[in-house]
Amino acid sequence: MKSYCIHQIGQLPQKVNKSIPTVKDDELLLKLSASSLNHRDIWITKGLYPGIKIDATMGADGCGQDENGQDYIINPGLEWGNNEAYQASNFRVLGVPDDGTFAEYIAINKKYVLQKPSHLSTLQAAALPLAGVTAFRALFKRANLQKGEKVLISGIGGGVALFAMQFAIAHGCEVLVTSGSSIKLEKAISLGAKAGYLYHDVEWTKNLLADFGGVDVIIDSAAGSGFQQLVKICNPGARIAFYGGSQGKIDGLNPQTLFWKQISLLGTTMGSDLDFKEMVSFVQQHQIIPIIHSVYALDELHQGFHYMETAQQFGKIVFEH
Amino acid sequence: MKSYCIHQIGQLPQKVNKSIPTVKDDELLLKLSASSLNHRDIWITKGLYPGIKIDATMGADGCGQDENGQDYIINPGLEWGNNEAYQASNFRVLGVPDDGTFAEYIAINKKYVLQKPSHLSTLQAAALPLAGVTAFRALFKRANLQKGEKVLISGIGGGVALFAMQFAIAHGCEVLVTSGSSIKLEKAISLGAKAGYLYHDVEWTKNLLADFGGVDVIIDSAAGSGFQQLVKICNPGARIAFYGGSQGKIDGLNPQTLFWKQISLLGTTMGSDLDFKEMVSFVQQHQIIPIIHSVYALDELHQGFHYMETAQQFGKIVFEH
Repeated sequence: MKSYCIHQIGQLPQKVNKSIPTVKDDELLLKLSASSLNHRDIWITKGLYPGIKIDATMGADGCGQDENGQDYIINPGLEWGNNEAYQASNFRVLGVPDDGTFAEYIAINKKYVLQKPSHLSTLQAAALPLAGVTAFRALFKRANLQKGEKVLISGIGGGVALFAMQFAIAHGCEVLVTSGSSIKLEKAISLGAKAGYLYHDVEWTKNLLADFGGVDVIIDSAAGSGFQQLVKICNPGARIAFYGGSQGKIDGLNPQTLFWKQISLLGTTMGSDLDFKEMVSFVQQHQIIPIIHSVYALDELHQGFHYMETAQQFGKIVFEH
Repeated sequence: MKSYCIHQIGQLPQKVNKSIPTVKDDELLLKLSASSLNHRDIWITKGLYPGIKIDATMGADGCGQDENGQDYIINPGLEWGNNEAYQASNFRVLGVPDDGTFAEYIAINKKYVLQKPSHLSTLQAAALPLAGVTAFRALFKRANLQKGEKVLISGIGGGVALFAMQFAIAHGCEVLVTSGSSIKLEKAISLGAKAGYLYHDVEWTKNLLADFGGVDVIIDSAAGSGFQQLVKICNPGARIAFYGGSQGKIDGLNPQTLFWKQISLLGTTMGSDLDFKEMVSFVQQHQIIPIIHSVYALDELHQGFHYMETAQQFGKIVFEH
């Protein structure tokens, strides 16, 4: 079968012919109908991710069909373990070191599949898993988001940020967004965000405070020196959940502001098996449709990688197999 | 009556003769038998605290007797409000702007008094309120401390740090401490801490990791550049609760470590009425005795202030009225 593997650090995934995997007792063989791209895939090709195994098939997100014609989505969080608070030391994300979804077939333990939500196409379903579970855990398990609260999603346009926006709106919250692009802000507003702020504008926190008074929950993946700006717009009791650090180390936090306002800074990544199940139920209940930026054929995989590096996407980059 | 008031910023409290306060319907008049000193009192004299009211009586902590001979301790957190997550905007700590405990009498709303725990002397009871509720909220409401977890208390010797140590030991946890003084480390170990580390030793985090593998909860009041050292010794799922920032801004936090380990950084200050009640119950249940460094007469108040500025104390500085 066709598969795209990490062959050498610094190279994009290479197309390799592999055998269709043999299935163990507790596994299902799925013919993959769609997969989607995550930033993690970029970092793996650059050698910036732990646990890289050369020649493993890449890809964390996928939707596939069993021999009976049932469509499934795959939970990409392997071996989370029994503690809801954090993943076990042998936790892995699907797709390097374990063979992933950028292939024609996958053998996957039955405990990691759920029936595809019926309101989603296979392409939409393939956009959901990794980003969906990360957003869900950040909002509901870490930040304990309550109906009616004000939420800021920084850097709108990426998969996790968009799911966080959609989930928070569905939960009855007022959602504000930031971006470096006014086009992305407009798109977010067209999808239900109340307002958008350009984070390069030195007045953005002042403007947000004037417009909305402050926020209760922030979902961030930038960190860096801009993180202290986020603290400025926090209401008392606010929670900032962050799942990335693209802008580097967090600096200049004023402890007095943080403790007097009882603010919580909450690191979060991926989600447990339970988080994944609850996320999929939430998506079904609220009939949420993942936002897809573009669809490529699996053989156009490199185009997807190149496009993600431009950071222009608003939504997930999906591959049709 | 005799009272010690903030008369001018930069001066220690001045002894002033005031009338015995008139009592409203919902208040009790207490003859104060003891009070205790907090860092907050030092900051007020230096003008480094918000809401300073000139000529108000200082002092947050106190124990006093009503006309029937019943001894009470006073909850120094006024108008916390209805939200357990954070204090209302009109929240104040007793003793500037409201008249406090460095006096012969106080008129205090009945909702802020609890009967003195019978196992405590009036001097011990006066040592408990502010530091006790701060430590209790940090450990149990913010860090959600579980029996059997490993806890690090940084900067052992101050009131909050010592109560945090005592409460965590009473809760069945293994407690480690840091200090700049080996004498303080030895004292903490004699009170039940498992080990102590000198924080000026560049190897201290490495040594702690070798000895104990890491910690689940950290209680800190220093912040500053040393805060990133605390993150290094965090187990997955760890919570760092901090109630002070004597070393200034928090710098150099690695977001990847924080999110991959699902670490929580939790600002906390004081506590709600419920926190105070639960803290006093906990102290009664576990028969905890506050650690007193020294007792002065109320007329020796300035000696107490001077001693606290040397930072040599191990335990509370208490005034006998």
